[in-house]
Amino acid sequence: MTNVQIGLPWLVRMKPGALQRLGLYLARPCLPSVALFHSEGLPQTILDVALQSLRDHGIALALLHEVNEASVEEAVRLLGAVPPSCKALVGAGGGKALDVAKCIASFAGLPYFAVPTSVSNDGFCSPQASLTLAGKRRSLPTGLPDAVVVDLAVCQRAPLSLWHSGVGDLSSKFTAVADWRLAFHRRGVPVNDLAALMSDASVFQFMANSVSDEQGIRLLATALMMNGVAMEIAGSSRPASGSEHLISHALDMTGASQRLHGLQTGTAAYLVSSLQSGNHHERIGQLFARTGFWESVRNQPFSKEEWRIAVERAPSVKEDFYTILSETDAWPKFATMIAHDAALIGCFQ
Amino acid sequence: MTNVQIGLPWLVRMKPGALQRLGLYLARPCLPSVALFHSEGLPQTILDVALQSLRDHGIALALLHEVNEASVEEAVRLLGAVPPSCKALVGAGGGKALDVAKCIASFAGLPYFAVPTSVSNDGFCSPQASLTLAGKRRSLPTGLPDAVVVDLAVCQRAPLSLWHSGVGDLSSKFTAVADWRLAFHRRGVPVNDLAALMSDASVFQFMANSVSDEQGIRLLATALMMNGVAMEIAGSSRPASGSEHLISHALDMTGASQRLHGLQTGTAAYLVSSLQSGNHHERIGQLFARTGFWESVRNQPFSKEEWRIAVERAPSVKEDFYTILSETDAWPKFATMIAHDAALIGCFQ
Amino acid sequence: MTNVQIGLPWLVRMKPGALQRLGLYLARPCLPSVALFHSEGLPQTILDVALQSLRDHGIALALLHEVNEASVEEAVRLLGAVPPSCKALVGAGGGKALDVAKCIASFAGLPYFAVPTSVSNDGFCSPQASLTLAGKRRSLPTGLPDAVVVDLAVCQRAPLSLWHSGVGDLSSKFTAVADWRLAFHRRGVPVNDLAALMSDASVFQFMANSVSDEQGIRLLATALMMNGVAMEIAGSSRPASGSEHLISHALDMTGASQRLHGLQTGTAAYLVSSLQSGNHHERIGQLFARTGFWESVRNQPFSKEEWRIAVERAPSVKEDFYTILSETDAWPKFATMIAHDAALIGCFQ
Amino acid sequence: MTNVQIGLPWLVRMKPGALQRLGLYLARPCLPSVALFHSEGLPQTILDVALQSLRDHGIALALLHEVNEASVEEAVRLLGAVPPSCKALVGAGGGKALDVAKCIASFAGLPYFAVPTSVSNDGFCSPQASLTLAGKRRSLPTGLPDAVVVDLAVCQRAPLSLWHSGVGDLSSKFTAVADWRLAFHRRGVPVNDLAALMSDASVFQFMANSVSDEQGIRLLATALMMNGVAMEIAGSSRPASGSEHLISHALDMTGASQRLHGLQTGTAAYLVSSLQSGNHHERIGQLFARTGFWESVRNQPFSKEEWRIAVERAPSVKEDFYTILSETDAWPKFATMIAHDAALIGCFQ
Repeated sequence: MTNVQIGLPWLVRMKPGALQRLGLYLARPCLPSVALFHSEGLPQTILDVALQSLRDHGIALALLHEVNEASVEEAVRLLGAVPPSCKALVGAGGGKALDVAKCIASFAGLPYFAVPTSVSNDGFCSPQASLTLAGKRRSLPTGLPDAVVVDLAVCQRAPLSLWHSGVGDLSSKFTAVADWRLAFHRRGVPVNDLAALMSDASVFQFMANSVSDEQGIRLLATALMMNGVAMEIAGSSRPASGSEHLISHALDMTGASQRLHGLQTGTAAYLVSSLQSGNHHERIGQLFARTGFWESVRNQPFSKEEWRIAVERAPSVKEDFYTILSETDAWPKFATMIAHDAALIGCFQ
Repeated sequence: MTNVQIGLPWLVRMKPGALQRLGLYLARPCLPSVALFHSEGLPQTILDVALQSLRDHGIALALLHEVNEASVEEAVRLLGAVPPSCKALVGAGGGKALDVAKCIASFAGLPYFAVPTSVSNDGFCSPQASLTLAGKRRSLPTGLPDAVVVDLAVCQRAPLSLWHSGVGDLSSKFTAVADWRLAFHRRGVPVNDLAALMSDASVFQFMANSVSDEQGIRLLATALMMNGVAMEIAGSSRPASGSEHLISHALDMTGASQRLHGLQTGTAAYLVSSLQSGNHHERIGQLFARTGFWESVRNQPFSKEEWRIAVERAPSVKEDFYTILSETDAWPKFATMIAHDAALIGCFQ
Repeated sequence: MTNVQIGLPWLVRMKPGALQRLGLYLARPCLPSVALFHSEGLPQTILDVALQSLRDHGIALALLHEVNEASVEEAVRLLGAVPPSCKALVGAGGGKALDVAKCIASFAGLPYFAVPTSVSNDGFCSPQASLTLAGKRRSLPTGLPDAVVVDLAVCQRAPLSLWHSGVGDLSSKFTAVADWRLAFHRRGVPVNDLAALMSDASVFQFMANSVSDEQGIRLLATALMMNGVAMEIAGSSRPASGSEHLISHALDMTGASQRLHGLQTGTAAYLVSSLQSGNHHERIGQLFARTGFWESVRNQPFSKEEWRIAVERAPSVKEDFYTILSETDAWPKFATMIAHDAALIGCFQ
Repeated sequence: MTNVQIGLPWLVRMKPGALQRLGLYLARPCLPSVALFHSEGLPQTILDVALQSLRDHGIALALLHEVNEASVEEAVRLLGAVPPSCKALVGAGGGKALDVAKCIASFAGLPYFAVPTSVSNDGFCSPQASLTLAGKRRSLPTGLPDAVVVDLAVCQRAPLSLWHSGVGDLSSKFTAVADWRLAFHRRGVPVNDLAALMSDASVFQFMANSVSDEQGIRLLATALMMNGVAMEIAGSSRPASGSEHLISHALDMTGASQRLHGLQTGTAAYLVSSLQSGNHHERIGQLFARTGFWESVRNQPFSKEEWRIAVERAPSVKEDFYTILSETDAWPKFATMIAHDAALIGCFQ
């Protein structure tokens, strides 16, 4: 019967050139020494901007590490490598590096700066790290990042498919919230309405300006960040992840050829929303049409057979997690859509 | 250098029929006795639904009071009238009653349920109460409500002008955030980017479905609620209130004929945004055109002379509060707009 | 099923000369302008030290006010007198001034500095303000002070009876906790064990060095402060206030000749503990003997008749507040003790 | 400039028979399935009481594990073994098992119940876990336990040497706080006075009743718990750990024959306090004399040579950690005390 208390990032910067100011953002709160974890394949020019900024503001680089493995075991190994002098951790690049850095920071109790170089999913500002443990995928609670630095110019130069992935991941909030409400009605799973409303609204806020210009990327990044906040409020991933994420997880688990996370969850959201009540299916369809989402899918079409296996396995991926897939034999309907829906032409083979 | 910790409502319900469930929302967390403060002129039929719901769930009505005066002195008098057995306070109706109830609850340390019957401004879920003290307008900090209950069916039946007022108040977040950023550049006023981004985004989220149907009212209410959350994050009213609110306050202080708060702040936001950089002026214009905002203004036009006085006084209304009006002689420009802008025809006389 | 989140003072200073550093304590967190509320009869020399310290550190005195009335109505009037430029409130002296200042600060949302000049009760660091409202005594929730500054040298120079009052108020934690546990067994009132253990332990920590030297005063002040923290943890006054406080309130309400709060509650605790199980009665007896508590009582003996009336009224002073007095006809036993207990000779007339 | 926000256990139970109610404490907040981690060598009879209580209240035992290794690597392995159905973790027994369970719970984001079977140090309610990582000792931040269950009858039956160890660990708070204040004067290390006063006071509260009866064990457990709270307030181990802990760590690192942690830190505190100002040396001496602390030391005397090596190494054990050992050549003085102080006769060989 008390307020929901949540912790939020104390620094958020979303603007062109933010990366050049990374050192300043660390210097102001007196964090003179950091460990920086970055993605494999992060362009050297981007990394150089970050490192130069640290030098410019007298921030020592206690450790520089390229993340190749997103496992808890690796996070613990790296925790041992972080020198005691280090006062903060920076994760730069894509999801894997950010999740590993976030996890280490949580274990070490050090401030964590998330510096995504694209807005391809909601992981950069979520309260959990998605890693493997003993080879299996796990989500560990970490709290939200202490600081989020999004250089809009850098994100704008990222491949368009990454932006499409972000759009896809965002659209899956519609289906996630619908699954959450269904789980309440069928199984009494408690719904935090504030989180659910925020999550739903985050999609609408992007729909008002769904282009990949600076403002559009800011809105997409803000919307994805709001989802992280909604997860923190709910104390679960329910506002951001439903049956469409089960399908995506199942694709990953069954060894399907890997695609960008948001292309998988977005496509799954489009399919799943056709089974749910309300008119989210139309909304997602319009959003994907307007943003050209399907083009990124068509560039590297999904395997219909892999999806069949994944959709059938999806309901059992997570224990005690009721969704629309728990009560519907979805695949036959999806197969029909894949065969006949004009939007999906060329998306599966 | 720590997280921003904020307290959020533990119950939010936005749906048709929510008012009929008020008793249930109080019974679940074991609040068996409440005091209910309601607006002057709240339709008896609405009040009856609330009272019946309390009876249905065995909630005792420790006090029922119609709020006629929104002053701190009155709040203290009413505080003395709340019996010790009372476990929660409910504010039902419009801004005045809600602000008084919120203030008493804050003084008494009792849970507060906000039950707005229209979404005409962002006060129903803001962390402060706007009251007079010794005859002067003051904002007292209260924290966010513990519970927010918005009956969408009730709000849909409210006069359209109240919905327009909500739209106007929402649009003023664009100008408020622009003023906040200006105050940072000119005076070093710290900006909480998370709050600023949320506030800006809240307008966009409504723009995606800016009609007065159930979904539109839910989006508007959610957007206004997000503004309350943004104020709580920022620890100030800056994300929700800028020069457009100064003009509205000045209108109130100089005894101008009273209009709905959001009609004043919305119109002021349209004018002020024309002085600010960015393209918010166009966005607000489109939003107002689409929603028919100006019709509610034209039904009872503003006095041009009263606005002249208010705009000239606005910069000095609040101490230490830098806005675009601090550096611009605004009235001549506004006068030109009022004379020539097609949208404003019939809005001033 | 979540942690108990509590807010604690961010500054605590207990040392000789702390008052001379008051300005420094305000300057460090950038609070350049304060309102100072002090007790009637606070020695000018003490006030001068505080004011000089403000000047020395460039802190502007926005308001200086001598508190004569401890009512909510007065707090609201004074709230109106605090200028907008004021960034913090200071309460200096005894209980009344501190409670009024704490209440205003809570209403205004301004940081509050508690500067007690004696340690005569636990009010200087409690999460509530004890004031009258419409002539009746009320406790308003305020949160703990933001800063607590106890000048041990100043407190050491305060009359010994004030120290005895602090000792008496502290000893009443034994009886308060026993009443709390009784209320759990008889009425199911939830007990927060952490708060109860802290409260009990606070008496023991003072018993280890119960003299009025610098260390003894520091231990007494710390113990009383821990009680304030225990109240904040419990979310009620139960860990600090039981049947002995009911008797003290009843004395105040029935117009008995006024004595120091802690002399009343301490004497009541001695009496009440004789009815409770455990050996707290002996412990309190030893503590009072060692500290010379009874001398301050004997200097101005209580009226036996006034106590009879108060003890008989005590059980009905507070609604829904079960204590040992709810199930015992206490007065005959107390009368016998007053007549025969050697410690009490000369304490009543 | 805000309050210090801390999270505290929501359940604390210290009483005889508490272990038999463990199942009840888990059933009330609806935690139907737990993993229990216990110490090597925990008497089967104690374990059986816990397991029977779980059965009596319908709590499923998702995992039962005897902890043999206190490393982060092992904690991660065990994290992988905790089934998804598990809703809470219990650590039962001594320090190692409790630290491992606390660490796993923190990684998993699950509620953690600390069930110590003796009060031999302050680890059962501290906000960190002391484990090895890649073979080196590390303290990982975990937050305080969610629940603390101390069966006083069980603790009373534990070997007296464990109680002595608790007394020794408690006495080291005096020296830790003195070192903290010294670090402030010499190096500007910030001191949280609230935490320092609580820590100091916790020793005094036990000194008022320093016997091993039920009340004495409750006071000792409460005092050690208050230290955990003080660490959480301070955001560091400074209120509980100073030069005396450096010596103890150095003993562990240099392969000295292992003794109970509190016998090491207590003896070190006695030595170190002789170098510090104030009269804590006398107080510790009296406390150890009254409790018979030295008997447990004499039963298995320390090696003088091992202590020489440890004391010389102690100042460099922790980076950036100023203590009295940073400015004193301590060993010669300690050697003289060991040779001549009557209390230490038979304690070293």
